Amino acid sequence: MKVGLIGLGKMGLNLGQNLLDHHHEVVAFDVNPSAVEEMKKFGAVGVSSYKELVQSLEKPRIIWIMVQHAVVDLVVGEIKPFLDKGDIVIEAGNSHYKESIQRYNELKEFGVRFMDAGTSGGMEGARNGACYVIGGDPDAWEIVQPIFKDTAVENGFLYAGKAGSGHFLKMVHNGIEYAMMAAIGEGFEVLEKSEFDYDYEKVARVWNNGSVIRSWLMELTENAFSKDSKLDEIKGIMHSSGEGKWTVETALNLQTATPVITMSLLMRYRSLENDTFTGKVVAALRNEFGGHAVVKK
Amino acid sequence: MKVGLIGLGKMGLNLGQNLLDHHHEVVAFDVNPSAVEEMKKFGAVGVSSYKELVQSLEKPRIIWIMVQHAVVDLVVGEIKPFLDKGDIVIEAGNSHYKESIQRYNELKEFGVRFMDAGTSGGMEGARNGACYVIGGDPDAWEIVQPIFKDTAVENGFLYAGKAGSGHFLKMVHNGIEYAMMAAIGEGFEVLEKSEFDYDYEKVARVWNNGSVIRSWLMELTENAFSKDSKLDEIKGIMHSSGEGKWTVETALNLQTATPVITMSLLMRYRSLENDTFTGKVVAALRNEFGGHAVVKK
Amino acid sequence: MKVGLIGLGKMGLNLGQNLLDHHHEVVAFDVNPSAVEEMKKFGAVGVSSYKELVQSLEKPRIIWIMVQHAVVDLVVGEIKPFLDKGDIVIEAGNSHYKESIQRYNELKEFGVRFMDAGTSGGMEGARNGACYVIGGDPDAWEIVQPIFKDTAVENGFLYAGKAGSGHFLKMVHNGIEYAMMAAIGEGFEVLEKSEFDYDYEKVARVWNNGSVIRSWLMELTENAFSKDSKLDEIKGIMHSSGEGKWTVETALNLQTATPVITMSLLMRYRSLENDTFTGKVVAALRNEFGGHAVVKK
Amino acid sequence: MKVGLIGLGKMGLNLGQNLLDHHHEVVAFDVNPSAVEEMKKFGAVGVSSYKELVQSLEKPRIIWIMVQHAVVDLVVGEIKPFLDKGDIVIEAGNSHYKESIQRYNELKEFGVRFMDAGTSGGMEGARNGACYVIGGDPDAWEIVQPIFKDTAVENGFLYAGKAGSGHFLKMVHNGIEYAMMAAIGEGFEVLEKSEFDYDYEKVARVWNNGSVIRSWLMELTENAFSKDSKLDEIKGIMHSSGEGKWTVETALNLQTATPVITMSLLMRYRSLENDTFTGKVVAALRNEFGGHAVVKK
Repeated sequence: MKVGLIGLGKMGLNLGQNLLDHHHEVVAFDVNPSAVEEMKKFGAVGVSSYKELVQSLEKPRIIWIMVQHAVVDLVVGEIKPFLDKGDIVIEAGNSHYKESIQRYNELKEFGVRFMDAGTSGGMEGARNGACYVIGGDPDAWEIVQPIFKDTAVENGFLYAGKAGSGHFLKMVHNGIEYAMMAAIGEGFEVLEKSEFDYDYEKVARVWNNGSVIRSWLMELTENAFSKDSKLDEIKGIMHSSGEGKWTVETALNLQTATPVITMSLLMRYRSLENDTFTGKVVAALRNEFGGHAVVKK
Repeated sequence: MKVGLIGLGKMGLNLGQNLLDHHHEVVAFDVNPSAVEEMKKFGAVGVSSYKELVQSLEKPRIIWIMVQHAVVDLVVGEIKPFLDKGDIVIEAGNSHYKESIQRYNELKEFGVRFMDAGTSGGMEGARNGACYVIGGDPDAWEIVQPIFKDTAVENGFLYAGKAGSGHFLKMVHNGIEYAMMAAIGEGFEVLEKSEFDYDYEKVARVWNNGSVIRSWLMELTENAFSKDSKLDEIKGIMHSSGEGKWTVETALNLQTATPVITMSLLMRYRSLENDTFTGKVVAALRNEFGGHAVVKK
Repeated sequence: MKVGLIGLGKMGLNLGQNLLDHHHEVVAFDVNPSAVEEMKKFGAVGVSSYKELVQSLEKPRIIWIMVQHAVVDLVVGEIKPFLDKGDIVIEAGNSHYKESIQRYNELKEFGVRFMDAGTSGGMEGARNGACYVIGGDPDAWEIVQPIFKDTAVENGFLYAGKAGSGHFLKMVHNGIEYAMMAAIGEGFEVLEKSEFDYDYEKVARVWNNGSVIRSWLMELTENAFSKDSKLDEIKGIMHSSGEGKWTVETALNLQTATPVITMSLLMRYRSLENDTFTGKVVAALRNEFGGHAVVKK
Repeated sequence: MKVGLIGLGKMGLNLGQNLLDHHHEVVAFDVNPSAVEEMKKFGAVGVSSYKELVQSLEKPRIIWIMVQHAVVDLVVGEIKPFLDKGDIVIEAGNSHYKESIQRYNELKEFGVRFMDAGTSGGMEGARNGACYVIGGDPDAWEIVQPIFKDTAVENGFLYAGKAGSGHFLKMVHNGIEYAMMAAIGEGFEVLEKSEFDYDYEKVARVWNNGSVIRSWLMELTENAFSKDSKLDEIKGIMHSSGEGKWTVETALNLQTATPVITMSLLMRYRSLENDTFTGKVVAALRNEFGGHAVVKK
């Protein structure tokens, strides 16, 4: 198929190659001309404007947007004037599902079909086989299914239902991911504080062979310990990019008790600080009623 | 009444004066002779050995032990040979209720009646009016009730039931206390990070006048902020002396979901550390699968 | 002073009487005419429309809105056409602080001064002495301070700062309240499951006399147990009206770790359900890998 | 090698066959004679007493105990009189690591070498390839390594260090497992309460193909949903067999903040109850201060 690809960062460049591998035609655009040049080397047709990109495609057009979450609206705004009824816009970044629903509705007014695709598997996945969950209209899905199937790992794609369902599913995926990572981390912290002297790389390896907790995250744990056996070189600061927070916020809106996912998020926030005001208040209170010594700065 | 008081630290000295205020006779002993001298100044009879203390009292003797948790068994062991059937031993420190039950049973073999008293209210309370919860035999309670009543604030004593019930109740009291303190601390932390510029002393004061969360802990919060308006001078390191942990352990044994008390304890532990192994593992994993940068040491 | 009071529900009626007690003039309106009649009995001037209410006051007018959160915008919209530059609108319900900031800004365009007042203390407080935290412009505060001072308990009012700071403070107050209530509840649950047989009313009473956790909430706990000694007559379903959720959402936005407040909220949600999907999944997984029996419906 | 196998329940019978598959000689005993008969069918030598079992082996004897945790001490007590210096006792059940250390020390006095082996992978693993983590003396490990290697999956065994380290590692494994399961469960609960209509079997399948959270537990989730698409037939009651609780208790002893593992345990306890006393207290308090209606039984 012929696909218009907008956004040629690390993810987009890898996906473009993946599409080309599977004999799809790629018309590529990025605001950075050198990225377009790079994409052309792999066989893509490069264009120099949003307008040109849209006009280089046949109706119904298929346009795959692979840009930072913050600029999705800008990109959609740029291409919208040139789109025609029946065109399909795929947004495969990490947008909030409510924004995707909104975009779906906005484009629907023009007869343009918007699809929200949650993409998992990292750069390696984008290049050689990703995992997709996709929301949008079933008739649009019929058309675009081949390009998802071709660029995913086997069984690594799911049409999840109506608009928003793809990004919702990806959001929850990341919520689970946060908690699983914390579970592994906490387990190793207990080991680290114990009276025993474990080789963590070997522990992760044995846990990946036959145990109940074998998982890709545990394999990555094994990799990480193979490079730095006690993780002495890094700090335990846990940043987050938003989907875990969205999961918790959504759970609150749905009145769903998700303590495990929620605590994994809160401990990420806690890790961003050296000291806490909560701690100061509690320490001060202990001093007030019990005369317990406080630690002065 | 005539009371043998063992342990003349800050709590014991204050309690001794409190007893004397209420016209009880106090026979006092401490392994530190100067503490005995101090107690004598307030009108107590000082003695120089455990044996002398026991022998200075009339049967059934009433002996009040107010020592560090770690030396209770030692003290009980010292006086046991001199005790007679019907004597009453009150242990008013922060012992684990299971130890108190054990001590009760051990002394019961000799006909000695052991009472576990949880004491709240700090040094000030010991001096001018404490809050007691007491477990043990009802017949022993009948005898000792006056000394508790006299040294407590009004309505500040409760015979809680069989052996162990006093220290159990005190333990749970402290579990609640941990969580209430954390609740207050977290609230002020949200204020501190907000876009507003609150005067925390004034906030604590208004919350102490007519609001739902008015409480002695909030009064102490007001005091603390009156001395150091942003608690800039202290670190948020939250130590703990055991009862909160016992509460959580007991809750686990009773298969009781106590997430709020439990999290308040875990966050105390978290505050003891600058960095965590959990954080390192999670940061390393984010780097492994997403190429997210880690913070190097 | 002369105050226009909109909203004569339980809170408004009580506040109106409180204002009248302190020799303020009250011009009262409610969409329910019988409520207006009721208010008139206590000495208020009743009016029959928003317009009449506004026009019965002298500039700068003082209008106190005491209505359900959901209709605040409607009420503000009704009175806005009749307001003049310099008028002061006090909104004393439980609005989200961001909405209050928005209303402040909207009215500011017309020169109308909006104040957000968080009110604590329930109906009893509204009648005899409430606890207020108020945000808005300092010049407006200067004018309205007397009516807050008169209707509050002693020291029960605080001008908290710029627009939104009042409702923000009330929100955090409620977050703390959620966690304190959960702390007390969890403590009593541990008692209930223990081997001891406590009289909970007496436990709450002794904890209110001299202990560290003495508080108004513990007094209410005492009251509750005095009416139903084991709370056998009620179900443990914990509803919530929003401020706790807002506190947690705000904490997430501020990247603040508030596990204790957060868990108190999540356990409220958990209490709304007889069974959980989480539990089903975990039970099914235990069956899958360990052959552990599941409980069939 | 020649192995004395005590305990021919489901795990023991499977392990026995696994050993025989790999050309080890198995001398088998169980207090249930029919289990011994069953084991003999597969080629094991059956014996009819602990004494006979021990005496059928050559020194240094290798005895593998695979019995319920509750009877380990009984079994060790039965064989101890017949053991000789240098003999090796492997305990491959789910004992607490502190008990294992104690047993190690007790047997060490007689020169008998005790090894604690944590076994993961369920019955299927025991039959065809388990995952082992083993603690004890290195010299003993040298001798027994072949039987672990032969009956494990590839790379599915680890000599973890001194006595207790095997069962400690297995305990922490289970703690991680609890939290991972809860993470998955919570994720699906958010899906279940959402506005979308997912096919959970398909969701689990796509998550197992290329996503970050692919794992054996997610494969089991897929299996579970394939049998009962909404888990309508089961209740969400989450029992637990102890290792998760031990992990949390150990974390408390090590002053380690493990909120995610801990919450997964507490929610299991919560699932055992239809209603909670915490909930009753909170509901009663809301009624006391706010007049909020309680749900009557």
